[in-house]
Amino acid sequence: MDIANLKIDGARLWQALMDLAQIGATEKGGVKRLALSDLDKQGRDLVLAWGRAEGLQISIDQIGNVFMRRPGRNPDLPPVVAGSHIDTQPTGGKFDGNYGVLAALEVVRTLNQHGIETEAPIEVAFWTNEEGSRFVPVMMGSGVFCGAFSLQHAYDAKDVAGLRVEDELRRIGYLGDEIPGQHPMRAYFEAHIEQGPVLEDADKVIGVVPAVMGLSWYDCVVQGMEAHAGPTPMHLRRDALQIATRIMQETVAIANRYPPYGRGTVGYVQVFPNSRNVIPGQVKFSIDLRNVNEELLDKMHQEITSFVAATAADSGLSISLERVSYYPPCPFHPECVDAVRQATAQLGYSTMDVVSGAGHDAIYAARVAPAGMIFVPCKDGISHNEIEDAQAAHLEAGANVLLHAMLRMAVS
Amino acid sequence: MDIANLKIDGARLWQALMDLAQIGATEKGGVKRLALSDLDKQGRDLVLAWGRAEGLQISIDQIGNVFMRRPGRNPDLPPVVAGSHIDTQPTGGKFDGNYGVLAALEVVRTLNQHGIETEAPIEVAFWTNEEGSRFVPVMMGSGVFCGAFSLQHAYDAKDVAGLRVEDELRRIGYLGDEIPGQHPMRAYFEAHIEQGPVLEDADKVIGVVPAVMGLSWYDCVVQGMEAHAGPTPMHLRRDALQIATRIMQETVAIANRYPPYGRGTVGYVQVFPNSRNVIPGQVKFSIDLRNVNEELLDKMHQEITSFVAATAADSGLSISLERVSYYPPCPFHPECVDAVRQATAQLGYSTMDVVSGAGHDAIYAARVAPAGMIFVPCKDGISHNEIEDAQAAHLEAGANVLLHAMLRMAVS
Repeated sequence: MDIANLKIDGARLWQALMDLAQIGATEKGGVKRLALSDLDKQGRDLVLAWGRAEGLQISIDQIGNVFMRRPGRNPDLPPVVAGSHIDTQPTGGKFDGNYGVLAALEVVRTLNQHGIETEAPIEVAFWTNEEGSRFVPVMMGSGVFCGAFSLQHAYDAKDVAGLRVEDELRRIGYLGDEIPGQHPMRAYFEAHIEQGPVLEDADKVIGVVPAVMGLSWYDCVVQGMEAHAGPTPMHLRRDALQIATRIMQETVAIANRYPPYGRGTVGYVQVFPNSRNVIPGQVKFSIDLRNVNEELLDKMHQEITSFVAATAADSGLSISLERVSYYPPCPFHPECVDAVRQATAQLGYSTMDVVSGAGHDAIYAARVAPAGMIFVPCKDGISHNEIEDAQAAHLEAGANVLLHAMLRMAVS
Repeated sequence: MDIANLKIDGARLWQALMDLAQIGATEKGGVKRLALSDLDKQGRDLVLAWGRAEGLQISIDQIGNVFMRRPGRNPDLPPVVAGSHIDTQPTGGKFDGNYGVLAALEVVRTLNQHGIETEAPIEVAFWTNEEGSRFVPVMMGSGVFCGAFSLQHAYDAKDVAGLRVEDELRRIGYLGDEIPGQHPMRAYFEAHIEQGPVLEDADKVIGVVPAVMGLSWYDCVVQGMEAHAGPTPMHLRRDALQIATRIMQETVAIANRYPPYGRGTVGYVQVFPNSRNVIPGQVKFSIDLRNVNEELLDKMHQEITSFVAATAADSGLSISLERVSYYPPCPFHPECVDAVRQATAQLGYSTMDVVSGAGHDAIYAARVAPAGMIFVPCKDGISHNEIEDAQAAHLEAGANVLLHAMLRMAVS
């Protein structure tokens, strides 16, 4: 077997995706499989059964992260790991997360089928509660793994019914022994649908992901004065909404001044008292700024801060701007990015670099090991939605890239 | 007695206002006396008792409007009427409506005290359910009186508990015999707190009200495309909020192009899905345009219509603009406006013209008789609020103007 021409089985990968999507399937063709629910247990059990059938050695850590190992020739080498998560949003799709796990499983099946040994072990991983829909914080398993927050903090998280993560892990049989993070990795790869429209728009098959954007989140409150819409002349108004709209527009203008990776979004708006014939007395809204370059993200932060201050001075209204969240950009490891790039070139797929705007377990994995990601197109850029869709040929291509990127890291 | 120097008793007027405000008094110093409630009955009964004590003849029509007549020398002349309403908002104040009724009562008391006869009869009126808080439509009693809508339509209106206007009128004993509108009026005057900041801002005591503004109300819906705030590049977005903010700003810009009586307000905004990290897929908002000149209001209508069409074409987003309500401007009768103006000049109060931006029973009264209004300042332009406030000296001045405006119409 010429390893350079090795390909995964696209039909087998698709069947695994469809089989796993049966667990928690929704009427609209999506999946609802919330973290640590009975359905999550069924999904986990199915993936473990598939792993055992391939002879993989299973280890589970104390936050329920699962690693399924295919031994290498050299047991002293840390494994080359690939994975993602199998929990979904309440109205989630078949591919988000699941694809990264089953593409890794397909890599193992392909290696087994062709009897190919690797120098380093190969592992299929899935992380607990990436979505954060039922329990906060999001990316819980990988976050504990890399030390972003403590195991106890994660254990004490409760869902709306008051059920604790630790108790739910025990209940579904996934409270493991391994200490989170005590699991060296030679490299970590995560294949994922893009969750954006860039690849589809450019008609490319593989996105090489050099980095994940940093983000800066704000709450902004403009305080004006409620008054009757009729009797109050324009020059005597303190209309909070009119001033707020200037800042909403500037949020987008700032992003447009930092192409191609600047992002600016106002997604949440609350107007008080929100009555047709009352001039708004207060407007609260969110601001979401992102960039892949930390220096540029900081400039964007300074620009929104300055603009809000200038708008307050100009309008005479009180305006507060509070930064409520900040994550710096996460560049992936050059070795992993390069492995993905070379594998893509070797396989001849059309490709482009796509910076990830969304969070992934790979961000936390990157804190403790060389990490990289592979994106494939998703229909209309839509995810976290039951109509989330992807083409079998693209999913197959992404898994082939994963196979060869892992082989590059596992033999060297 | 030199009639030209006749003055009302400001202390007596204030006491009447405070006494009536006890019925439904709230802890915060306001009044809650909803139309046709037990408290409304108590308020009505008190005002009728005061009227009877002054020897007034009381008639009640089928929608519960009350007229209390002081005969004139010539019983064939239609009466000069003044009044307003005594129902309040759920968190209403002491002066809105009540002032117009009790200022008219104070006029009668003053005439009685000084034994002054008028040629035409003088009447104190109050109209049913002006506020519209409990039953829709607003300005119900005056609306039925002038034929804006039918008695049956008003009778069938229900509150949130399902109680009907007709039944509640009967229950509180104010379902009268007189056919609404079968009550000729020589003129109708209404004294009222301004409900806006104009007099206070200009430091004037009396507002002569030449007209009530017309209004044009719209629902606007901008349809974009929901997408993740991170993975979606700026140039591939269809951000409904960003496009909506242009229209929100233009609403105010249009009003500013038609000074001094143009008004433009966006009071209600609903963003979907209204999540911090999702680009808004749809924004619904209200537009409120007003002007005192119908031709200018029509130009404002054409401008917002054109702007929305141009914005839809420019952005490629679908935008709907639906006019949901329209009231033409209501100029008051020159004879009544002039009577108020001359009375003010004669009394030497500082004055200015103030167009009413809010609705009043006088608008409907103006459809069937010469009508006019008198405004006095209210603190910070605030009404429909328990902190609504007005100065006793201003209320006294307004009642003096009402007295002399009525005398002008009642003797001529």
